[in-house]
Amino acid sequence: MVQLLNDRRDIQFVLYEQLCIESLTKDSKYSDLNRKTFDLVISEAKALAIKELLPASIEGDVQGCSFENGKVTVPAVFHSVYKLIVEGEWIALSDDLDVGGQGMPQIIKMVVDELFQGANTCLALSMGLTHGAGKLIEIYGTEEQKKLYLKKVYSGEWTGTMALTEAGAGSEVGELEASAKKNPDGTYSITGNKVFITQAENNLTENIINPVLARIEGSPKGTRGISLFLVPKYLVNEDGSLGERNDIECTGIEEKIGIHGSPTCSMAMGSKGNCIGTLLGKENEGLKSMFHMMNEARLFVAMQGLGLSSTAYLYALNYARERFQGKHITKLRESDAKQVPLIEHPDIKRMLMMMKSSIEGLRSLNYYVGLCIDQVGLEATSQEEKKRLNGLIALLIPICKAHTTERGFELCNMAIQIYGGAGACREYPVEQLLRDIKIATIYEGTTGIQAMDLLGRKIGMNKGRVFQDFIEEINKTVITAENQSSISVLARQFKKALDKFKKTALNIGQAAASQQIQEAFSQAYPFCEVSGDISIAWMLLWRASVASFKLDKILGKADEEKRAEKIAKNKDAAFYNSQIQTAQYFINSVIPKTMGMMDAINNLDSAVVNITDAGFGGK
Amino acid sequence: MVQLLNDRRDIQFVLYEQLCIESLTKDSKYSDLNRKTFDLVISEAKALAIKELLPASIEGDVQGCSFENGKVTVPAVFHSVYKLIVEGEWIALSDDLDVGGQGMPQIIKMVVDELFQGANTCLALSMGLTHGAGKLIEIYGTEEQKKLYLKKVYSGEWTGTMALTEAGAGSEVGELEASAKKNPDGTYSITGNKVFITQAENNLTENIINPVLARIEGSPKGTRGISLFLVPKYLVNEDGSLGERNDIECTGIEEKIGIHGSPTCSMAMGSKGNCIGTLLGKENEGLKSMFHMMNEARLFVAMQGLGLSSTAYLYALNYARERFQGKHITKLRESDAKQVPLIEHPDIKRMLMMMKSSIEGLRSLNYYVGLCIDQVGLEATSQEEKKRLNGLIALLIPICKAHTTERGFELCNMAIQIYGGAGACREYPVEQLLRDIKIATIYEGTTGIQAMDLLGRKIGMNKGRVFQDFIEEINKTVITAENQSSISVLARQFKKALDKFKKTALNIGQAAASQQIQEAFSQAYPFCEVSGDISIAWMLLWRASVASFKLDKILGKADEEKRAEKIAKNKDAAFYNSQIQTAQYFINSVIPKTMGMMDAINNLDSAVVNITDAGFGGK
Repeated sequence: MVQLLNDRRDIQFVLYEQLCIESLTKDSKYSDLNRKTFDLVISEAKALAIKELLPASIEGDVQGCSFENGKVTVPAVFHSVYKLIVEGEWIALSDDLDVGGQGMPQIIKMVVDELFQGANTCLALSMGLTHGAGKLIEIYGTEEQKKLYLKKVYSGEWTGTMALTEAGAGSEVGELEASAKKNPDGTYSITGNKVFITQAENNLTENIINPVLARIEGSPKGTRGISLFLVPKYLVNEDGSLGERNDIECTGIEEKIGIHGSPTCSMAMGSKGNCIGTLLGKENEGLKSMFHMMNEARLFVAMQGLGLSSTAYLYALNYARERFQGKHITKLRESDAKQVPLIEHPDIKRMLMMMKSSIEGLRSLNYYVGLCIDQVGLEATSQEEKKRLNGLIALLIPICKAHTTERGFELCNMAIQIYGGAGACREYPVEQLLRDIKIATIYEGTTGIQAMDLLGRKIGMNKGRVFQDFIEEINKTVITAENQSSISVLARQFKKALDKFKKTALNIGQAAASQQIQEAFSQAYPFCEVSGDISIAWMLLWRASVASFKLDKILGKADEEKRAEKIAKNKDAAFYNSQIQTAQYFINSVIPKTMGMMDAINNLDSAVVNITDAGFGGK
Repeated sequence: MVQLLNDRRDIQFVLYEQLCIESLTKDSKYSDLNRKTFDLVISEAKALAIKELLPASIEGDVQGCSFENGKVTVPAVFHSVYKLIVEGEWIALSDDLDVGGQGMPQIIKMVVDELFQGANTCLALSMGLTHGAGKLIEIYGTEEQKKLYLKKVYSGEWTGTMALTEAGAGSEVGELEASAKKNPDGTYSITGNKVFITQAENNLTENIINPVLARIEGSPKGTRGISLFLVPKYLVNEDGSLGERNDIECTGIEEKIGIHGSPTCSMAMGSKGNCIGTLLGKENEGLKSMFHMMNEARLFVAMQGLGLSSTAYLYALNYARERFQGKHITKLRESDAKQVPLIEHPDIKRMLMMMKSSIEGLRSLNYYVGLCIDQVGLEATSQEEKKRLNGLIALLIPICKAHTTERGFELCNMAIQIYGGAGACREYPVEQLLRDIKIATIYEGTTGIQAMDLLGRKIGMNKGRVFQDFIEEINKTVITAENQSSISVLARQFKKALDKFKKTALNIGQAAASQQIQEAFSQAYPFCEVSGDISIAWMLLWRASVASFKLDKILGKADEEKRAEKIAKNKDAAFYNSQIQTAQYFINSVIPKTMGMMDAINNLDSAVVNITDAGFGGK
């Protein structure tokens, strides 16, 4: 089983053939890097993922976390693997060298995220949160805070968290009750309770650094009066050694449907009146700082969706090849017909194709956002181009987060379905993937919140300019594809969907700013799903366009029969050909449904708005 | 929490207002029954479900089953509840009085199934399998077999199973390897292994009766050489007392994603050469007998999907009413705006509406099939009408099984989404429902198999006459609704979908019988989903049609304003009005997507067929 996680060919296709990321190395920022370095990093990540993270994930699911007297124990099997992660300096892979990072582009980090998330989502999550805490310190920390914490967090010597959520507030962060009182020495005394805080207590590292949201006494109500504090488990002396135990205590952990190896902690701060934090960033700007991290966090959760569903696909594909069951559909009436492998049954192929097309499209889409982030950071990028790129990123993040996790959940469920009864059993690996991926549609903003963000803030951003830029990017692909004989029909088919998508966005966007605001927002989720599928189709067409050029080169002017022969024999030709088929499947078998969904959105039906509480029954 | 399971109003609406089941009591078969009896049975079932089954389900999930030395222990909390089930004589509720049944119509049993499944799917499953074993004995048993086993199984004093599956055969039952050798005394010695057999070993009852599929030595290969045997855990003496322990042993149980309280057993028969079974029915007709039970079993699993998702809906609805979070969408910019309950957010309402509409549509659809089964059994029903009804039942069973369980899984997932982070925690009840419902899309024939049955056997049945009967039934509803002013627009909207559905069925049916057989079967699953949504829309329109008549009666000729006032005050008016809104939602917001899916089906795209094994990658 552990030989899996092997989509290397596809990852390389996206990096070097579709997105041509080698161009990044032409910029002075990345001039020391080249394709070889990238490949080396990916190879090492893959080896670590397969040999260490994946087996630990399966064992960690069984072992789980435990809580006793304020102490949290993570799966025993995680300790040695976490040590390898620290030693390999994987946590700050894409951060600058001078702050302790490895200086890789974001897109390379995303490849590694996909591999690690797909292998062991609990440990990947641990890394991601630690990195996020480090990033907050890097951006908002004083020199003192950086000196005390940054390298130890970026290295993973200390783990980090993100402590926003409270039981009474949930997604409505502005309602939080945690409070902070300034002490004479400039530190703050924090009081309050947080829930659902990943690894805020754990036995992986000796210290834990918690960025905590709280309201300074006297600050405004709501989101405008929230500040960010750094609250370590152990206070840190000036020489970097550990000082007193801070008054932040774990009061319990959740039993959850999945990610059993990741402790989800309830935390009490200041119950002895002595929880010390230091202000991170400016007073009352805590939420702004946190939101600065949201893009990173949301993209990271998208990679969780991608990694887990990619693993599910590879397992299911393997099982479908090895498991013989049932006669071929064309031989049902032949009593001597032999059983064929599952992969030869049309309905199994449909599921595999849905998985393949969705995963590949979403891989391209997420990596594309990573590339945009990298391009923003290049020396040579103009201010105007940065603005355009940041707009695209802002628009695509909710789509990536929502659609990769929601579709990913469906795909993990499909993997179970391919396994049949075995899929529901813990003896096989896929049911864990479904349980582990579930939380991804909830944390860092539920899908509903992503959909509201897309409709309420993003599609109208810069007076619609951002959305227009998005459509223009897609159009580039369509125009190229329309001129390639092997895919021009597909391109024209997709163009119809794109036109409808533009109209739908305009329509729902206008409704959201009108008396029909409630009807519009009741369609926010379907619109987000539509945006996701249009984006997948775009990426698949782009892939097919690249593949078609390459395939023509390999095949030359061979006739139909010879083409088929070459495709059967030449591994690259088979790969490129399958890219065209994948786009064909998605555009002909999935996009028509998306078209129907747009009709539903455009109906802006009022039943959901008008039904009363009593109308829902149940009382 | 346990005050839930309260869709009594909706259940009564379906039984007495939509399907008018009181008409059954006009037939001599049910002349002793009346609405009061039905209501009494349902009330008692509900009380048992809420007070006993539901709390035991939550505890049973934690306790789980255990296996040691061939013995299986079910959750301790199940024993007293199972005893109440036996005492209440719930297992053979719809069987004839003279065989130990309660003589209720099938549709009343389905209501009880829904309540029990929704409360405790593990115990309901136990009852269902016991009943299934009893039914086989009733239909195919010799007088001797009936005397020895029937009453004890129908009462639940002994549990029963259904032992088909083998590790090497799975869904391809014809490949099974279990064998039977006739003994001089007329019994058979059975040898073989079975997997995934629910409760084939358990400590609920002192004896367990296993109908087992095996091949008599010398019988033909494949499905035509399979016979059915009755293999009890303890042999039964002529006086009904227990004899020797039979040579059928449990070798292990599965750890599964859900239904932790239901033991899924691997069984070894004849490992000591002494497993005795008696032939049930005729030689080599075992599969035919088993398939006779399939309709019952599949409808029963559909009720699992319905019961669990209905419970999920009621929990989510309750949570959405009680949990205050976030400002109302129309007041986002008002800094003083208070938090509102979740149910006031458009996206939450969308999810609740999707749950409500699907569940109510599927409730009507499944109960409708139950009513058809009852009508077949009436004294007054003509042979011709029986044929028509049996056709409808055969056509609808795969739709009911596939769509109720698949949609049900989605709905349980939606319930988690409504709870947010809490939904993923075991402290709240909905994550268990998702885990418990998963198996329903797999056992008794996966969704893929249901879809193949629908496309390959059912839509062309009797030269398409059955499908035509189905459409005619739907048309009756459309014609009535077209003449009701409040819903005529909806009726016309739905009619378009129905027309497209007819064409799509013809198209895919013809393709399935042509060279395009593989393309057609790669669309079998989407076609089954489309059939399900068309059926739901039909049922919702039918409900709206009934509700509209009733609403007009209540409201009289009141003007717009007075209507609204009356609807707000009168509970019945609110219920009927919500029925119209529910149909409106589904036809305007879901059916357009179904229309798009039909376009995709009609494309009959070949990419899925043409992609090669290598094209799927992963090697």
